[in-house]
Amino acid sequence: MTEYSLFTSESVSEGHPDKIADQISDAILDAILAEDPRARVACETMVKTGVAIISGEISTNAWVDLESIVRGVINDIGYTSSDVGFDGSTCSVINIIGKQSPEINQGVDRDNLEDQGAGDQGLMFGYASDETDVLMPAPITYAHRLVERQAKVRRDGTLKWLRPDAKSQVTLRYGADGRPEGIDAVVLSTQHNPEISLSDLREAVIEEIIKPVLPAEWLSDSTKYFINPTGKFVIGGPVGDCGLTGRKIIVDSYGGMARHGGGAFSGKDPSKVDRSAAYAGRWVAKNIVAAGLASRCEIQVSYAIGEAQPTSISLNTFGTETVPHDKIVAAVREVFDLRPFAIIRDLDLLHPIYRPTASYGHFGRQPYQLNRGTAFSWEKTDRAEALKAALG
Amino acid sequence: MTEYSLFTSESVSEGHPDKIADQISDAILDAILAEDPRARVACETMVKTGVAIISGEISTNAWVDLESIVRGVINDIGYTSSDVGFDGSTCSVINIIGKQSPEINQGVDRDNLEDQGAGDQGLMFGYASDETDVLMPAPITYAHRLVERQAKVRRDGTLKWLRPDAKSQVTLRYGADGRPEGIDAVVLSTQHNPEISLSDLREAVIEEIIKPVLPAEWLSDSTKYFINPTGKFVIGGPVGDCGLTGRKIIVDSYGGMARHGGGAFSGKDPSKVDRSAAYAGRWVAKNIVAAGLASRCEIQVSYAIGEAQPTSISLNTFGTETVPHDKIVAAVREVFDLRPFAIIRDLDLLHPIYRPTASYGHFGRQPYQLNRGTAFSWEKTDRAEALKAALG
Ligand SMILES: C[S@@+](CC[C@H](N)C(=O)[O-])C[C@H]1O[C@@H](n2cnc3c(N)ncnc32)[C@H](O)[C@@H]1O
Ligand SMILES: C[S@@+](CC[C@H](N)C(=O)[O-])C[C@H]1O[C@@H](n2cnc3c(N)ncnc32)[C@H](O)[C@@H]1O
Repeated sequence: MTEYSLFTSESVSEGHPDKIADQISDAILDAILAEDPRARVACETMVKTGVAIISGEISTNAWVDLESIVRGVINDIGYTSSDVGFDGSTCSVINIIGKQSPEINQGVDRDNLEDQGAGDQGLMFGYASDETDVLMPAPITYAHRLVERQAKVRRDGTLKWLRPDAKSQVTLRYGADGRPEGIDAVVLSTQHNPEISLSDLREAVIEEIIKPVLPAEWLSDSTKYFINPTGKFVIGGPVGDCGLTGRKIIVDSYGGMARHGGGAFSGKDPSKVDRSAAYAGRWVAKNIVAAGLASRCEIQVSYAIGEAQPTSISLNTFGTETVPHDKIVAAVREVFDLRPFAIIRDLDLLHPIYRPTASYGHFGRQPYQLNRGTAFSWEKTDRAEALKAALG
Repeated sequence: MTEYSLFTSESVSEGHPDKIADQISDAILDAILAEDPRARVACETMVKTGVAIISGEISTNAWVDLESIVRGVINDIGYTSSDVGFDGSTCSVINIIGKQSPEINQGVDRDNLEDQGAGDQGLMFGYASDETDVLMPAPITYAHRLVERQAKVRRDGTLKWLRPDAKSQVTLRYGADGRPEGIDAVVLSTQHNPEISLSDLREAVIEEIIKPVLPAEWLSDSTKYFINPTGKFVIGGPVGDCGLTGRKIIVDSYGGMARHGGGAFSGKDPSKVDRSAAYAGRWVAKNIVAAGLASRCEIQVSYAIGEAQPTSISLNTFGTETVPHDKIVAAVREVFDLRPFAIIRDLDLLHPIYRPTASYGHFGRQPYQLNRGTAFSWEKTDRAEALKAALG
């Protein structure tokens, strides 16, 4: 139960500049992992008017056609001409990638593979709550669905004047029982072509994007709508706003409802605990809620660089636990192995599965384009029974 | 009171690559604001081996010597030669800055200055707790002090072999009463010159950095120390790790103890609510705790782009309130004006005050180099009496 009577979360579409950067970083990661699962990748991207700059540290034996990957991602999103502000086929692609520092590497690689050290220090959180059927907070869930819908009606031609860049925001009202009971405000800004009038745009956004996505019973006369409040949004993408990898970490996770350790996900291979341990944290928290041990649960883990065992594992059940808190912590320690090696093994992370994670959230959903036919492994509730068993 | 029995926060020194980027972005912002307080600045920096790339959107009449500013920041930090991995005097400085989109600008500027619209949508949190005398969570407070101390003993020559890049992490143990009672683990990695041996480095770090900073009564035989756990950290700065503006948002704020809306601070003028409303949130929360209305308080605000009034204001007092929750919310609304115009006016934000914010945290401290002789205005408890008065 939250003590906030209102809670607001936001999301952005795949055409938002920071998300272009995230998707490029993860597409490069995927291309490398497909060839060389033991590669070390930390890929950072900056996009600005007419240019994508690729940086970071990569150590691999794989050869990938970096330029084609970058151009492909930008074109796939829909930035295919100067008219929309960015053109994957003609923009500049600049590569200033370096190698992983051998001094970091010596802390990570160990003779005994199981002892693999964390790729960095850091703190990560995982979260789940029974507020939605996907065990995610409701505000971020609906914020994502709005921008996913924007992309859908743009792609399928329902609203031909839509362009790729968009943002959404949802303010939910919570009742005294801590359950969402209505929507106070919706913000949606979408890039558009110059032909559509503001009033036509607003009507179409309400009818084709907002109403099909938000539960009708949560909308009322007191719901406030802010649709393209600046009045004009023809210029979008990297011309209007420089994009960087890792700058949408709250959109990527729980929309602000859960705490965040600060580490970004995209472009990082799973030896980086910023990513793999945050995924594992979601998996642990979701299994706790799925097992009925708490209706709301947040886990914090932390690591020291070069060390396999976490420096801390700690749990918050917000008073919603059905079993004593200490016992849940003990069961988590028994059922989950949170060393980097074990997380990578148990969640099967050394595959090119990352590009679909890079827009519309890393948690609480199954991506519409599934690589390898598999779902996000960290969304499985496959350890709920083991947790119950550990509790006797 | 937290339900976490352990809580971990981290910090990084001013020589960390992401912090180099933050400081460059804020130094550019300061130089522009000094000449043109009405400038619109969103400055993003990427640093990698031998190069600093400056991007973002800036609209101003001021002329600033961008290259000199960038070189000055890098040199001031201590990156003054290829030996340490980066040299402010000889690195490349690339400028790909654009202008603010006129379509965004038309949403922000209004005929009546008071109606100034938010520069973007978004959600922001402010937080305070009586855990420390600066009304900040203890873990981030001590994590900052460790890296500040690293910089001090590097600069004053106490430990001549230290180099600029460093990271700290502190795991605190909390008692049943929710008060910190001991330190479980300390992680400290610092860049160093190749002459110092690992054992000498570890001893010196304990004696000269850790012991002078951490309360003796919190250290015990069970405290675990991880000092330069990779064994070697001669290569540092942008060679070892690409740095980007806005990638240390949890270090910048509350170390993960509070929620985060996701917006970065550095490089942004205060028309961007990501920065100004997060500062205001800290100010509100700190005044609530200073007024004794709660011992722990988190506020969430949200905005729609182009709108002056927040789309939501909501409060969490975690059951620590001494006055009914609703009444505190009403008093906040009466005492604080959270429109962008009013925040900028009341916190006096249109001055070159930002560079000192860009390392060691934006909250809970007064910077050691004070610009304009003033303290961080958002740390003042100047509205505590007004809050009490509003409550009758
Ligand atoms: C408002 S911009 C960030 C501010 C920008 N850096 C500046 O210089 O003011 C953030 C996001 O808002 C969206 N955006 C861009 N132009 C917009 C417009 N004219 N109206 C509404 N939203 C817009 C895009 O998704 C963009 O990435
Ligand atoms: C470990 S690096 C991030 C990972 C990196 N991108 C990679 O390719 O593996 C993050 C930070 O750790 C610190 N660091 C760099 N080299 C290190 C070393 N040899 N030992 C410990 N910490 C190091 C620096 O502060 C750096 O910015």
